[in-house]
Amino acid sequence: MNYNKESLKIHAQKQGKFEIKSKVPLETKDDLSIAYTPGVGAVCTAIGDDKGKSWQLTNRSNQVAIVSDGTAILGLGDLGPEAAMPVMEGKAIIFKEFANIDAVPLCINTTDPEEIIKFVKQIEPSFAGINLEDISAPRCFEITNRLEQELSIPVFHDDQTGTAIVTLAALINACRITNRETRDLKVVVNGAGAGGIATAELLISQGVRDLILLDSRGIISKDREDLNKYKEKILNQTNKDNISGDLSKAMQGADVFVGLSVANLVSEEMVRAMNPNPMIFAMANPVPEIMPDAAIRAGASIVGTGRSDFANQINNALVFPGIFRGLFDHKKTKVTQDVKIATAKAVASCVEPTRDKILPELTDKQIVNRIVESIGKIES
Amino acid sequence: MNYNKESLKIHAQKQGKFEIKSKVPLETKDDLSIAYTPGVGAVCTAIGDDKGKSWQLTNRSNQVAIVSDGTAILGLGDLGPEAAMPVMEGKAIIFKEFANIDAVPLCINTTDPEEIIKFVKQIEPSFAGINLEDISAPRCFEITNRLEQELSIPVFHDDQTGTAIVTLAALINACRITNRETRDLKVVVNGAGAGGIATAELLISQGVRDLILLDSRGIISKDREDLNKYKEKILNQTNKDNISGDLSKAMQGADVFVGLSVANLVSEEMVRAMNPNPMIFAMANPVPEIMPDAAIRAGASIVGTGRSDFANQINNALVFPGIFRGLFDHKKTKVTQDVKIATAKAVASCVEPTRDKILPELTDKQIVNRIVESIGKIES
Repeated sequence: MNYNKESLKIHAQKQGKFEIKSKVPLETKDDLSIAYTPGVGAVCTAIGDDKGKSWQLTNRSNQVAIVSDGTAILGLGDLGPEAAMPVMEGKAIIFKEFANIDAVPLCINTTDPEEIIKFVKQIEPSFAGINLEDISAPRCFEITNRLEQELSIPVFHDDQTGTAIVTLAALINACRITNRETRDLKVVVNGAGAGGIATAELLISQGVRDLILLDSRGIISKDREDLNKYKEKILNQTNKDNISGDLSKAMQGADVFVGLSVANLVSEEMVRAMNPNPMIFAMANPVPEIMPDAAIRAGASIVGTGRSDFANQINNALVFPGIFRGLFDHKKTKVTQDVKIATAKAVASCVEPTRDKILPELTDKQIVNRIVESIGKIES
Repeated sequence: MNYNKESLKIHAQKQGKFEIKSKVPLETKDDLSIAYTPGVGAVCTAIGDDKGKSWQLTNRSNQVAIVSDGTAILGLGDLGPEAAMPVMEGKAIIFKEFANIDAVPLCINTTDPEEIIKFVKQIEPSFAGINLEDISAPRCFEITNRLEQELSIPVFHDDQTGTAIVTLAALINACRITNRETRDLKVVVNGAGAGGIATAELLISQGVRDLILLDSRGIISKDREDLNKYKEKILNQTNKDNISGDLSKAMQGADVFVGLSVANLVSEEMVRAMNPNPMIFAMANPVPEIMPDAAIRAGASIVGTGRSDFANQINNALVFPGIFRGLFDHKKTKVTQDVKIATAKAVASCVEPTRDKILPELTDKQIVNRIVESIGKIES
């Protein structure tokens, strides 16, 4: 199937994918008197007297804002807020289908971090959680950090945290199949944007000791003089031998390639230069860093991509519906390290992994339940 | 029926009234590949290349943001953004039920006009229209005026323009029944907030020559030294005899009372002091300025309120779904004077008016079609 063509067709036919719906009847005059004036006045007054009641008397407790400035749409780059909407509508309907969460796409026309922070703070009274999306690095780090501190509802930048969690889930199961331990792996993470840095941090926290991170200019090393403060910071935990060079240099002797960059950067030759039976997670969207057939031809033992039309889809959509459902159901207001680990393990637990199925399918309805259960077991 | 009790019950039972829904299937892997990655990338790219395509390929063209700061909720006052949500959810589901428009409630926690203006400008790429709601005067005038100038999509402050239009519709039909002309009427408008000033302006533009406007301190006259610039401005067209005093003074010899103020301000005695067979539009919500039975007892010939549990509901909900549907269907980007008049006449045309039915019921599905048709006939 030509997904691009089909997608353009259905988007034009339906004018997008998102609509709203009433939870109450509006057929009769009485229905309107209850849902709207005069009855609604009593509900407003009740909340005015006790703001906490907005969690019981409105849809707020089930509502997520998906906020994007359109600066880093999939692997396509900065196409502006209008062009981000198809992704945000897609996330909104996935939230509903898999976690029964009502998510509202808000694509905004400012890229200024202070303005985005202020915007999100302004909408806090209407929502139970904030999903930041497709906001480019390094602005997304500052925005996410500040909002985590300044809001009293959970903030989740999917491109950072969702990506890190799903990659960890994939790695957990890939290690199970191939009888390897994270502590013994040499990992290359290509891409030091939102996903790359967050993934490197999470993998290191889970035992990876040898990790090289690269951006578009090559390996992040002490010799580089063009690093932002986020790249500088993670350098303390990565590239322990202080290697310099390009991607092909980094790939030599590596066990795992994690691609969070752009299309077609990895050649078969690079895969052949890795350690035997390497794992390739080529997650650039919509076109991966290397196509699965090429990676397998070059000796990869396990290959995953971000796409649903290949085996082993390593996609944030395995994570974001369940993590918000779990946070909401268990009244957690922060995506802590414990929440991240619990979620990754829950996703990994949904399958008895094989080389062609290291993770569950996106359509697997048990994923959300497993994540919710897993988050429920976290203490405090 | 006790609407307050029923309303509190259903809001608690359903946790509000708003939810979202998908327009496309998400059952299979192929469904996800079309609605989300990889297919969605082609849709983003198409819009990135031509922003105009966001109107065809996303739900934007059918989407309204309902923005409130919660400072003037119904006739209840400033209860804050959380307490505004039940009204905004009510509006959202009425938009959907009657005009198939997808409206998103956004209750925000700033009351600063510049911040509200900036907020609305930031969300413009996600919406086809803006419904401002329950924002107190005089801030709402500045906010609405600025946004009308600075946005390229329609902006409609329902408490101003919706109120003015539905009052004009009621007056058109009340005059028809009682064989009176607007030019001969002495009109008292009580309340110089959002609704009062906009209504006074629209009625004057439609031929009313004798109109007295009051705020909570009494009649707006040249003797007052506490008027804001909006009240100063309308003074040029109102209170031609420069009367001073309170509401009972203003009511003497009047033909029409338009109440856009608060509960229980009008006594039977005041109604008895009006001209014979006066019209009473007591639209404070949820409790009117005078109850219909009392007004009739005191001699009123036609009585309307904002509520659906009395005859003659004069409620903005007769207007806002149809006016946005008409603007969207006919690609109009401003709520011009012509649009206001066309809408008022269309609403009035939905009934063969009688004293107990000067306007159609909110549940009447022909209203939206009539408004759309009427807006379609406006030239330019």
